[in-house]
Amino acid sequence: MRAYDVILRKRRREELSQEEIAFLIDGFTRGEIPDYQMAAWCMAVFFQGMTARETRDLTLAMARSGDSVDLAPIRGVKVDKHSTGGVGDKTTLVLAPLVAAAGVPVAKMSGRGLGHTGGTLDKLESIPGFRVDLPKDVFVRNVNSIGIAVVGQTAAVAPADKKLYALRDVTATVDSMPLIASSVCSKKLACGADAIVFDVKVGTGAFMKSEDDARALARLMVDIVRGAGRRAAAVVSDMNQPLGRAVGNALEVREAIDTLRGSGPPDLVQLCLTLGSLMLVLGGVAPDARAARETLVGLLQSGAALAKFAQFVAAQGGDSSVVGRPDILPHARLTAAVPSPAAGYVAAINAEQVGVAAMILGAGRKTKDEPVDAAAGLVVEKKIGDMVSEGEALATLHTNSSASIDEASRLVASAYVIAREAPQAPSLIKEIIVD
Amino acid sequence: MRAYDVILRKRRREELSQEEIAFLIDGFTRGEIPDYQMAAWCMAVFFQGMTARETRDLTLAMARSGDSVDLAPIRGVKVDKHSTGGVGDKTTLVLAPLVAAAGVPVAKMSGRGLGHTGGTLDKLESIPGFRVDLPKDVFVRNVNSIGIAVVGQTAAVAPADKKLYALRDVTATVDSMPLIASSVCSKKLACGADAIVFDVKVGTGAFMKSEDDARALARLMVDIVRGAGRRAAAVVSDMNQPLGRAVGNALEVREAIDTLRGSGPPDLVQLCLTLGSLMLVLGGVAPDARAARETLVGLLQSGAALAKFAQFVAAQGGDSSVVGRPDILPHARLTAAVPSPAAGYVAAINAEQVGVAAMILGAGRKTKDEPVDAAAGLVVEKKIGDMVSEGEALATLHTNSSASIDEASRLVASAYVIAREAPQAPSLIKEIIVD
Repeated sequence: MRAYDVILRKRRREELSQEEIAFLIDGFTRGEIPDYQMAAWCMAVFFQGMTARETRDLTLAMARSGDSVDLAPIRGVKVDKHSTGGVGDKTTLVLAPLVAAAGVPVAKMSGRGLGHTGGTLDKLESIPGFRVDLPKDVFVRNVNSIGIAVVGQTAAVAPADKKLYALRDVTATVDSMPLIASSVCSKKLACGADAIVFDVKVGTGAFMKSEDDARALARLMVDIVRGAGRRAAAVVSDMNQPLGRAVGNALEVREAIDTLRGSGPPDLVQLCLTLGSLMLVLGGVAPDARAARETLVGLLQSGAALAKFAQFVAAQGGDSSVVGRPDILPHARLTAAVPSPAAGYVAAINAEQVGVAAMILGAGRKTKDEPVDAAAGLVVEKKIGDMVSEGEALATLHTNSSASIDEASRLVASAYVIAREAPQAPSLIKEIIVD
Repeated sequence: MRAYDVILRKRRREELSQEEIAFLIDGFTRGEIPDYQMAAWCMAVFFQGMTARETRDLTLAMARSGDSVDLAPIRGVKVDKHSTGGVGDKTTLVLAPLVAAAGVPVAKMSGRGLGHTGGTLDKLESIPGFRVDLPKDVFVRNVNSIGIAVVGQTAAVAPADKKLYALRDVTATVDSMPLIASSVCSKKLACGADAIVFDVKVGTGAFMKSEDDARALARLMVDIVRGAGRRAAAVVSDMNQPLGRAVGNALEVREAIDTLRGSGPPDLVQLCLTLGSLMLVLGGVAPDARAARETLVGLLQSGAALAKFAQFVAAQGGDSSVVGRPDILPHARLTAAVPSPAAGYVAAINAEQVGVAAMILGAGRKTKDEPVDAAAGLVVEKKIGDMVSEGEALATLHTNSSASIDEASRLVASAYVIAREAPQAPSLIKEIIVD
């Protein structure tokens, strides 16, 4: 077999066999197939696509390219959640303790933020003392004893995906549906969950800008995971404005704590209940979504979810008093309001621009190895549909870098569209795909 | 400027600026833009194409990537000819002395054969003593004194094209019209001719299988060369069967000598007169194609063309007695007839298969660094339209490798289609594009 022929066949839109795909991925991972052939192949895939069968085979080839995490020592049905990334998306901070409190074991491997989207690890690390580098035995023990642990994904998981993603990132071949789906699913499958719930974001702050594309990606990922013999569900959710109000690591932890206490922003609460219900059903601890939702609402109201969060924070070395005294979280030295240039209604928000503003303030990284400022970020004071008077704050910036305020302020102001008429508010949940 | 953005823009079918193309080619040539980005860009070009303006800019960027050959010390209008490659294509062997005899200075840089197509240098080197590695001053002196010299193209000419072609060759991006055209034209422009006549082959033995593609390529190359301020013309010619009868280096030299003596095969003669007429007109030594053709026929009949060939051979160290005694050319130890399996008419010949058979017999190379056997090859005894009886020879194989005979014989036999009815003979000249 020759890589040349596999490239040519894909270029001609012929369906590649399982053997051809395995040959390509295994050879690439071992360094036998050079970057330039793989880059040409990725561009051919961008134009010619892949069938569902090819995409599943690609996913499985990447999933088995390195270590597979064996979650067998953890009792129960392990249900993972994956979000395609958004602005202000702190759902994991809420969902993980919430579903753990409901009896679904949460053995989660998370990532860091890049560009305009945040990462769960960065957010958790804003809690004083919190550690994400648990040894494997501690990880397993924590899940078995308190039902929850969150760690960083090791480099040994799906190395083919890491190598391929790095190549796609510099060859303009990231935004290909089968390549996105196989990248996400290969990591998730290698991480060993029995079932996966996907949250595919769509809108100005999401990778997917079109609802059709987002639905197709959700469907594709569910099919891949099912084809690999696991269970899956997906939600397509709105990312045309930041989720909740807080954007930035410590700010989001604070909002997550509010939510676990039962007083979270409505959109965040709704999304967590929707995703959480699917997780409970797939985890076999609720008979259906309605019963699951009732369970989850009860856990929020009773304080059980918040207690689980405190237990989780303490188990990973963090200061669990944060749940009662969120003031112990890092604070920014400077805050600044972004005034509305006009009176009217918020008609639209470019959420990506808001995310970039938060990054500039110090909350995120442009490149992989930059540090983040846990205290930095912003709070969205006005969301779509809100009335605003001229000069009223659209958002409040939090930063330790005075030099960043002007640029971030301009970005946030220009992200807002103010109209005379009240707009139709975007629906949060666009679609639910259940098992 | 970033290579990433240039790839992305091409992927989106946006038109690249002259600066972007120069940035890409210059950076790639210097090794600053890596192979993998260039491979992704080539695949994007394969799918999205390039405008005429982009293709011209790409050609010029590659043409100036290395040394430009300065033909100014050579008097007269230097007219070059380029063939896209075929089987049994010995036109340069005939044309070069023929147009030189007519007063057009021939300062030619040629290549070697690869795969099923032969190369002029290999053919000339089958003449005992012939050398293609003339120093530059000898090259110039020969053209000024006897009107003709043929040498190998140096590595310093259009290095960007060499590097890009090598990359395209392993990434399934060779067959892209703008990439083919810019590759050919960049080398030709760097070689310094004032005018270029293209012979674009089409058919079973050519790179271009479709007549529409061949016409488009011819038109594109003529436009590029004119856009670069030189003159150009093109012929689209049939390659649905070998040109003439001989395929293989010494065998083709012998046929070229026959042709220069006025007794060549009709198709080879016709093509040489067509291309030669265009060269004489562009070279300013004939007022029009009709007058040019009369001149050329006269030079063949008078023996002046053959005498020029002898002078040319002698000037490059070869044994010029070859023109009177072609028997001094290398002979193969073995010959074998390929019998027709049936009686009827030759309806079609897969010329590429015939070329591959010649290569297997020793006449060509599979990879760049293999030697060739000057004596090896085959003679096509039956061409399209010829009547054949069962068992009569379709072709005669010439080789020094007995092990190759069976495979070559099978290939040649299966290349022939024998039909009951006489077919329409393919027309040799499909189109002529004049300045």
